[in-house]
Amino acid sequence: MNLTISKTEFYNTLQLVSRAISPNSPQTSLRGLKIDVKDNSMVVTGSDADISIQHTITANDKNKLNILEEGSILIESKYLLEIVRKIDSEEIHVEIIDGSLTKFSGNSAVFKINGMNPHDYPTIDFSKPANSVVISSSVMSDIIEQTTFATSIKETKPVLTGVNFHLSDNTLCCTATDSYRLAKKTIPFTSSDNFNVTIPSKSLNEVKSTMIGDDSGEIQIYLNDKKAQFVNEDMILQTRLLDGGYPETDRLIPKEFKYTLEINRSDLIHAIDRTTFIKTDNMTINRLQCSTDEVVLTNKSQEIGESHETLVGTFTGEPLDISFSGNYVMEAARSIRGDKLKIEFVGEMRPFILSSEEDPTILQLVLPVRTYN
Amino acid sequence: MNLTISKTEFYNTLQLVSRAISPNSPQTSLRGLKIDVKDNSMVVTGSDADISIQHTITANDKNKLNILEEGSILIESKYLLEIVRKIDSEEIHVEIIDGSLTKFSGNSAVFKINGMNPHDYPTIDFSKPANSVVISSSVMSDIIEQTTFATSIKETKPVLTGVNFHLSDNTLCCTATDSYRLAKKTIPFTSSDNFNVTIPSKSLNEVKSTMIGDDSGEIQIYLNDKKAQFVNEDMILQTRLLDGGYPETDRLIPKEFKYTLEINRSDLIHAIDRTTFIKTDNMTINRLQCSTDEVVLTNKSQEIGESHETLVGTFTGEPLDISFSGNYVMEAARSIRGDKLKIEFVGEMRPFILSSEEDPTILQLVLPVRTYN
Repeated sequence: MNLTISKTEFYNTLQLVSRAISPNSPQTSLRGLKIDVKDNSMVVTGSDADISIQHTITANDKNKLNILEEGSILIESKYLLEIVRKIDSEEIHVEIIDGSLTKFSGNSAVFKINGMNPHDYPTIDFSKPANSVVISSSVMSDIIEQTTFATSIKETKPVLTGVNFHLSDNTLCCTATDSYRLAKKTIPFTSSDNFNVTIPSKSLNEVKSTMIGDDSGEIQIYLNDKKAQFVNEDMILQTRLLDGGYPETDRLIPKEFKYTLEINRSDLIHAIDRTTFIKTDNMTINRLQCSTDEVVLTNKSQEIGESHETLVGTFTGEPLDISFSGNYVMEAARSIRGDKLKIEFVGEMRPFILSSEEDPTILQLVLPVRTYN
Repeated sequence: MNLTISKTEFYNTLQLVSRAISPNSPQTSLRGLKIDVKDNSMVVTGSDADISIQHTITANDKNKLNILEEGSILIESKYLLEIVRKIDSEEIHVEIIDGSLTKFSGNSAVFKINGMNPHDYPTIDFSKPANSVVISSSVMSDIIEQTTFATSIKETKPVLTGVNFHLSDNTLCCTATDSYRLAKKTIPFTSSDNFNVTIPSKSLNEVKSTMIGDDSGEIQIYLNDKKAQFVNEDMILQTRLLDGGYPETDRLIPKEFKYTLEINRSDLIHAIDRTTFIKTDNMTINRLQCSTDEVVLTNKSQEIGESHETLVGTFTGEPLDISFSGNYVMEAARSIRGDKLKIEFVGEMRPFILSSEEDPTILQLVLPVRTYN
């Protein structure tokens, strides 16, 4: 391998691809980035076995890729990033000089780095599954922002650490739950395909970080029952799927309500946020007391003290006294678009729903907590 | 106690004073900020027993301090900061309502927080020592930036964790060393006083963070053999001094040199910085080979690989081959002002000096390391 390439373009690619890497992976080869140079292009691959990213640089005027000799190298990601970021020239020269010893040259600075054998890198199957859908970047971005926060962080039920994507009857339904709250995004989606897969939350957040920039454009998603592959112009992000059936959640979502609170969304978020330092057993528990006369948010901890805030809102129904995790309600309210928030309740110990008429595709459900006031 | 005050002014004061606090101090009262309201002013005190900060807010149009009743409270710093930062009004109302239960009110938001008994707060003697000097903020800022990085982080010789301030014969000499390098700032200083004290590096960095803003103005320093007190308009920062005689360092500084390298300061810094990822035993060791023909900086690690960079510089003397900690030389070079750096050597295993004709007040000494190339 022997080539020159624009430092900036090379660095941007390395940064993107290295996001898939666990720098301290016990499998040494996975700490590396694999660079394959062939047919007028450079392909950079990184993986942590669950997520794999592959970015292709095809020679053009901007990236100034000039290939003198094809070949492959595997180099520890952190060294590669440091060298390319700090090199003292606009273009960098990369050349294998002996086995896996690779030379990087700038103006005066020269590095000879011990690479690894590219044949030690695991074989990653980047073949495209047959099923595929196209989704706009902005819709994909909304799905990720509005659901991933509600996935479980515990590995006890692995399938709950992902977001379930269920396409049937021209409706795409994306669901996330950690058993205490649930986020559900429902969008009309014209497609002859049907699928029901659960994608790890971490992978979706990487899709957002690496593939969704200015929210324009489209992402192609290829799916089978083992993997999902997100593809745009130069890049492939591939992730394993989570095994196991995703729980049936529709029956958990109440359809009829006895109480409704309409409130300014950011007022509620700020009011809860002011009280987050008042913790009981390391949780922020807020109590909401509503009547047609008054809406009051409080928080009380034996140790720290208490808060009391009257909110401006429109409540309909009998007086209601309900307690919940302040962080869950804040995260749910933050994920919804629009100024006005509607919260619908069934009872003091029953799940309640946050939604907005300005954004009917998203529904957030939160379970109350029992308190002993 | 009963008062109203501008949220912004109050918050700024709390932020400054809380810098003295160890949030998880085993002494519960030291996790708190003490607020004393008396005679048209509010005095806020925070301390970790080593460093104490006291800030006084005297009622004026800007801070809108309006005292309805005098008194004292002691409240956990982190709660106070959260409440004042997030309160829903421009002015905040603070009132002791029962013992140490304190009420904070904004527009709609009300907090009742369990304070601590202000009598449990340790007595901090803020009396002013008799000896005092006045120093410009910009000079104080330079002293701190150019010396503190060279103090020791090990507690084995506690006196080396501070910067020695030695005033005699109208010369102020500030010295820091960790035994492997030494920073020495020498400035003419007209004063009838003489002193020789060692101030903890941490305290000096707090002086910089809290008292030195736009580098204008002056700081008054009051000193005795136990403490140093830094005073500006509204604020006192007081620190204990380090016990024990500071080592005599002048004899360590070579006066005659056999080799001189003149080099662009930022070129050297960048060249070393490019190689910092090449570590041997977790240290970046650079080798500098100088002759009148060529100046070459290298770094080599069995595991990672090697770097080679030719530098543009003017070397006088017999050929020299010397190795050093890259981080020590980078920090020393960064602390010196000006474009041109002069490095003077006595021999390959003798300390060398970094200085600049553009900034003759500062001298940096670094010990070489032995390598087995």
